[in-house]
Order: sequence, then structure tokens, then C-alpha cells
Amino acid sequence: MADGTRVGRLIALHASRRLREPTEQPSSSDGRLPGPRSILRKGIFMDTFEAINQRRSVKAYDPAHRLTSAEETKLLESAIQSPTSFNMQNWRFVIVRDPEQRKRIRAAAVDQVQATDASLLILLTADLKAWQKSPERYWRNASPEVQALVVGWMGPFYEGKEQLQRDEAMRSCGLAGQTIMLAAKAMGYDSCPMIGFDAVKVAEIINLPKNHVIGFMIAVGKAVKPAAPKGGQLALAEVLVENRFSDG
Amino acid sequence: MADGTRVGRLIALHASRRLREPTEQPSSSDGRLPGPRSILRKGIFMDTFEAINQRRSVKAYDPAHRLTSAEETKLLESAIQSPTSFNMQNWRFVIVRDPEQRKRIRAAAVDQVQATDASLLILLTADLKAWQKSPERYWRNASPEVQALVVGWMGPFYEGKEQLQRDEAMRSCGLAGQTIMLAAKAMGYDSCPMIGFDAVKVAEIINLPKNHVIGFMIAVGKAVKPAAPKGGQLALAEVLVENRFSDG
Repeated sequence: MADGTRVGRLIALHASRRLREPTEQPSSSDGRLPGPRSILRKGIFMDTFEAINQRRSVKAYDPAHRLTSAEETKLLESAIQSPTSFNMQNWRFVIVRDPEQRKRIRAAAVDQVQATDASLLILLTADLKAWQKSPERYWRNASPEVQALVVGWMGPFYEGKEQLQRDEAMRSCGLAGQTIMLAAKAMGYDSCPMIGFDAVKVAEIINLPKNHVIGFMIAVGKAVKPAAPKGGQLALAEVLVENRFSDG
Repeated sequence: MADGTRVGRLIALHASRRLREPTEQPSSSDGRLPGPRSILRKGIFMDTFEAINQRRSVKAYDPAHRLTSAEETKLLESAIQSPTSFNMQNWRFVIVRDPEQRKRIRAAAVDQVQATDASLLILLTADLKAWQKSPERYWRNASPEVQALVVGWMGPFYEGKEQLQRDEAMRSCGLAGQTIMLAAKAMGYDSCPMIGFDAVKVAEIINLPKNHVIGFMIAVGKAVKPAAPKGGQLALAEVLVENRFSDG
């Protein structure tokens, strides 16, 4: 995900060499490529597996393009459908629109161009203490018995377990982040997850409250260059284990 | 995500009360509900937003049902399309098939029935040291310059940063986990992410190697009862921040 200026330039170069090769772009049933707007207007999106397979980390975006308010809402309403432990919805999504602030974040993110040029920059942060902030609201639609039981379980589960609280932040941001990237793809956009930034500086820029952490950031926009070819996909067998790891 | 026996029973009760209400199940264009197999055979899956909105944590599965080998491969091949930092593909997916082992995991997971009854139980684990294990293979398709640059950057990025290494594990498992759950939904299955288990015991059961951690587990299968209604969705505005957090 991380990408500095030199890396970005080299990868862009690498990608541009292949620009004339067939890309993996989706095509509508009549063979034309509908633009993002027309896809949204028609309510036609993309098969889930197409979105999964076509999602790639894109670095070069049209800086003049912005998502419509309806598109942005659709993207974020999708994000909050993602599951969280105990339904505690610990993510806090920071949408950075202010151009000056995006410049500052770019400077803190080894000058990655997508921080300023993408249509949208979303910082996925999480509240480490969401589990203790009126947790009954996460179960307000459940029966009183279920609500009491689940809420009563949350406190002892997290109390004093700082590492677990941080794990939940990263896990929730990961789950929601993939929803955002797949939703963006289905709307005809591209995305780039980013972890290559100075977390202390970025926390300062967004005025991150105490007990919150940044998971990662995602740039979303209209690609002007396709992603570089996949770096080196491992075979499924290399990352798959049957039942239990073997010894040694 | 976590759910003990009593909780599970209460939630199931809660859900069963609503069984006669209209569910959010997808319908094919002719109004019939195609089973998972027929969907896969036809190559017809599900719109990305439908999958995102219909994915729910389901606890009750048909214990006699198993995914076909082709379905399982499709699910896992989808998972490994998920992004990871520096493309290091740090996830290690443990597919638990052995019934005895699934019983032991269920016992370590507050007796949650889905651990034994779902068609598939996937433990999402990660190698904390993936960044130092022949990292050049993650970039073998890139130009030599890009490979050298990215690989040269990875070492100093992670070296000695134990918390960052663990964050990467949780982040990667979250990203891949959401892919698995959306892919399952698109194939006509349901899923349940689980964190309510004794991580030390489960690590022992799967013989988790040194420097590996468990992110969470996911049960995937054929639902026999719909999910409970959403516990209490927060409004988008409650988890959204514009530009920067306000003071205080």
C-alpha cells in the first residue's frame, strides 16, 4: 500500500508501459463502458466477484473530478454495513475535503499524489473506547434480555485489555475499508489503501482525539492511469493451511 | 461478533419471532430464490451493493451442507485478491474440516454452534514476519528497479516495530475477511465473523507457529434461520467527521 514519490513514479512508469495491453475493465451488457455517473443513475452496479477481482490499488487520479454527494453517501452508507465486534461500530471516518489539509496530509505521506488528487480522501480511524460509550445503543433494537446480556458481556471482555482494543480498531477498519474499496469499484471508481504516512503528524492534522487511532487511509477517485500489474500474487496453496499448521 | 450459548439462544429466539416478517433475501429476476449451487453453475452472482447490504451475521447453519470444492476455491481465490501493505500477503487461512477439531474449537469459543455446524470454518491468521520472508517474491512481476525499491523500503519500515507488525496482521485479516463474507453472500451463503474465543487454546488446536497471530474466524454456510434484526445501527452522521475532529 505504501508508496513514496520515487516508488510512485517508477510504478506509474511500469504501468504506463502496459497501457496498450487489454485492461481488466468491466463492460456493460452492450459492450460500452458506462461512466460512474451513468452507472449510478441507472442503478446498475457490478457483480461482487467482478468488483473483488478488478479492485486494484490505483495511484493516478483525475484531480478535477469529485464524487457527487449521492455517490459519496452511497459509499459511506455501504461502509457502515460492515460488521464490528459486539456491533460496537467503532470506526470514525474522516472525510478530508479541505485542499490545504489534503496538502498537509500528502506532505506527511511521503508526498503520495493520490492524497491530494483523488476525488475523496477517507481516513479510517477508530475509537478504542467505543465499547464503553453507551454500549446499549448498539443493541437498542434487540429485546431487553439480549441487550442486557450482550452489553453486560462487553465490559469485562475489553476492560484493561489495551492490545485487544487496538486489535478491534485495526480489524474494524480493515473490514470497513474493503467494503469502501469494493463499493467504489462497483460504482466505476478506483481506490488506493495507504499506510505509508507519519501517523503522529496526520493525527495532529485531523485533531485525532485521545483514545482514537488511525487504521489507514483510502483515496477514491477516477483513475487516469490503470494500476500497475499485480506485483507477485502468491499461489493459494502458499497461504492455505488444512486443519492445522504442520510442525517446524 | 462474539456470542455465547445463552446469547446465541436469545438472539435466535429474537430472530425467530420475526421469521414471518419480510426478510431481505435477494430474489432473482423471475422472483424465485435460486439455491447456491444453481447460482454458481450459471455464473450469476450478486450485485456488490446487494451483497454489502444483505451480509448479516448468521448463527444457525445446516450442519449437513458442505460447499463444493469449486465453491470453496472461488471463495478463497477471492480472499487473496484483497490488498495488503507492500503486497506482502501476510494472511494464512486455516480451513478447519476435521470434525473433532471443530468440536475442540467450539469448546474454546464459548460453545458457539456455528463453529461446528457451518459448512466451512476459516481461521484468519497472519504471519507477523511476512515482510522479511523473501519479500522479493511479492514483487517478482515488477521491474527490477521497482522491486529493489519497494523491497528495500519494507525492512526499515517494519524492523523492530512490533505493534505495527501486529496492526498489519489485524488490518490484512479484516480486509480479507470482508472479501470472504461478501463473496459468500454473493454465492448465496451466509457467514459469521467470530472473535469470542480463547485465542491461546485455539492457537494450540491449530498448532499456530511462532510469530503468527489469529485475527478472527469466519463461519460460512447455508443459513437455516435468518440473522437477528440489526442490533442498533448508528446514523452515518455519528461516525462521520468532516476534515478534522472538533475540540473537546
